[in-house]
Amino acid sequence: MKAKVHVTLKHGVLDVQGKAIGQALHGLGFDAVKDVRQGKFIELDLAETDPAKARAAVESMCKQLLANTVIENYRIDLDA
Amino acid sequence: MKAKVHVTLKHGVLDVQGKAIGQALHGLGFDAVKDVRQGKFIELDLAETDPAKARAAVESMCKQLLANTVIENYRIDLDA
Repeated sequence: MKAKVHVTLKHGVLDVQGKAIGQALHGLGFDAVKDVRQGKFIELDLAETDPAKARAAVESMCKQLLANTVIENYRIDLDA
Repeated sequence: MKAKVHVTLKHGVLDVQGKAIGQALHGLGFDAVKDVRQGKFIELDLAETDPAKARAAVESMCKQLLANTVIENYRIDLDA
């Protein structure tokens, strides 16, 4: 079973990487860009086949390692 | 208009970040993890309202800055 995890900075947390990308895009002439936020995208291949157990495991991985829940949100999507 | 861009390493390209995450997860006892790939997730807020023009602009941004197309793939999703 595959799991896709999006880790994004919470609203209000300064995103310096996003700001840098935004400035670089403006420098390249993309003036229509108003705001940029950069996050992480993690694809996990799991031996687990039960969706409920897989979600619980990935949830636990996010809390323990993948996301810093003080400043980041995470979203889990499971593929069969 | 919002655009979401996923930048992922092409198959066959060694993903050292993913390998490091995989080893850390094994170290934490998550033995069901078979493989991990890490990519980037970029959210763009655009002043452009025409979907076709927005997609063309983001496509151009990916080629020029957001993705290294030698080793990375990108996927663009537009939100109204």
